[in-house]
Amino acid sequence: MRWGVLVGGTGSNLKAMLTSGFSVSLVISHKAGVKALEIARDYGLESCVLMPKDYPDRQAYDAALVEQLSRFGIERVAMAGFLRWLTPETIARYPGAIVNLHPSLLPAYPGLHAIERAFSDGVLWSGVTVHFVDEGHDTGPIVAQVPVPRLVGDALADFEERIHAAEHALYPQVLKALDRGQAALIDGRVEYKKENDQWMHGH
Amino acid sequence: MRWGVLVGGTGSNLKAMLTSGFSVSLVISHKAGVKALEIARDYGLESCVLMPKDYPDRQAYDAALVEQLSRFGIERVAMAGFLRWLTPETIARYPGAIVNLHPSLLPAYPGLHAIERAFSDGVLWSGVTVHFVDEGHDTGPIVAQVPVPRLVGDALADFEERIHAAEHALYPQVLKALDRGQAALIDGRVEYKKENDQWMHGH
Repeated sequence: MRWGVLVGGTGSNLKAMLTSGFSVSLVISHKAGVKALEIARDYGLESCVLMPKDYPDRQAYDAALVEQLSRFGIERVAMAGFLRWLTPETIARYPGAIVNLHPSLLPAYPGLHAIERAFSDGVLWSGVTVHFVDEGHDTGPIVAQVPVPRLVGDALADFEERIHAAEHALYPQVLKALDRGQAALIDGRVEYKKENDQWMHGH
Repeated sequence: MRWGVLVGGTGSNLKAMLTSGFSVSLVISHKAGVKALEIARDYGLESCVLMPKDYPDRQAYDAALVEQLSRFGIERVAMAGFLRWLTPETIARYPGAIVNLHPSLLPAYPGLHAIERAFSDGVLWSGVTVHFVDEGHDTGPIVAQVPVPRLVGDALADFEERIHAAEHALYPQVLKALDRGQAALIDGRVEYKKENDQWMHGH
């Protein structure tokens, strides 16, 4: 399987994938000049920048995205800091082949500022979710999750750091499991080849 | 502190409190003939049944409830299977002194059928929350939480059993901590006497 990674920020999850030995064939960013692109360069990966302002609409943007993915023979896509919703057409083009990482135990705290909102609410546990991307916003079938505590003395930055550390531990593990075919999306549900593998619960 | 426990079902959490040595001074049920009342009897506890059909409205019902609590000198209330919302007047009467147990990691899955809904959604982690009761529905400040995994081979009944076991482990621990003054509601926020005690995260 050739994996593409969609980025747009610090690339900390891209870096976690690469340091864990997960093989990435293409990096696409929606923003120029971001750290994620430097990481791609450092690892000698193919990369490209597709900036929304260069396209008249979302359809045109996603057409360019799919064209790049196709050109590099990408069959699977991992989103990691790519702050755009894909069009239904793009999602339909890669059934069960696009995954996203979200910094909460979905369905709690979908959307932006998930960590901050959980922190403000005073939850004692939040976490990290990897899910297949569907047409909703952070609603797709859950592949793996790990709980992360908010400690009472935490500043927001401490809690964010702990959540990000959990992301970096979970995501590469899950991507490797998907790459080995240990889980797949069948009829809208996630089916696991081996029941209760540790990785799906983040251990 | 004299604690009252509000029940209405199997009383499995009441039983968990009592077997753990947590002292209960009064049990009130909104239903007659339930197992929870048998447990109260077995442990020689004062108990009474207040049936909604005997009262013209919620205000009258809650007036009777508060009267019973007062008669027995109850200062703190733990809800455990009491399937009624308290009126704002009742809640205001016991500031920071009414706690509820909910079978999810709130704010995920408030309301009824929380376990079943989480199971149907295919979450890999849900859990249990103890929170102070406010005027919303399962929205009050969180005191303690514990995550509980859904294992992939689980039937709904297996998952329910695991959640209930977590309730029985968490709730008595939290009630004892509250009784000792280790946490309190101050200006609408939960403040802990000792930071990062194990019990607040369910360990």
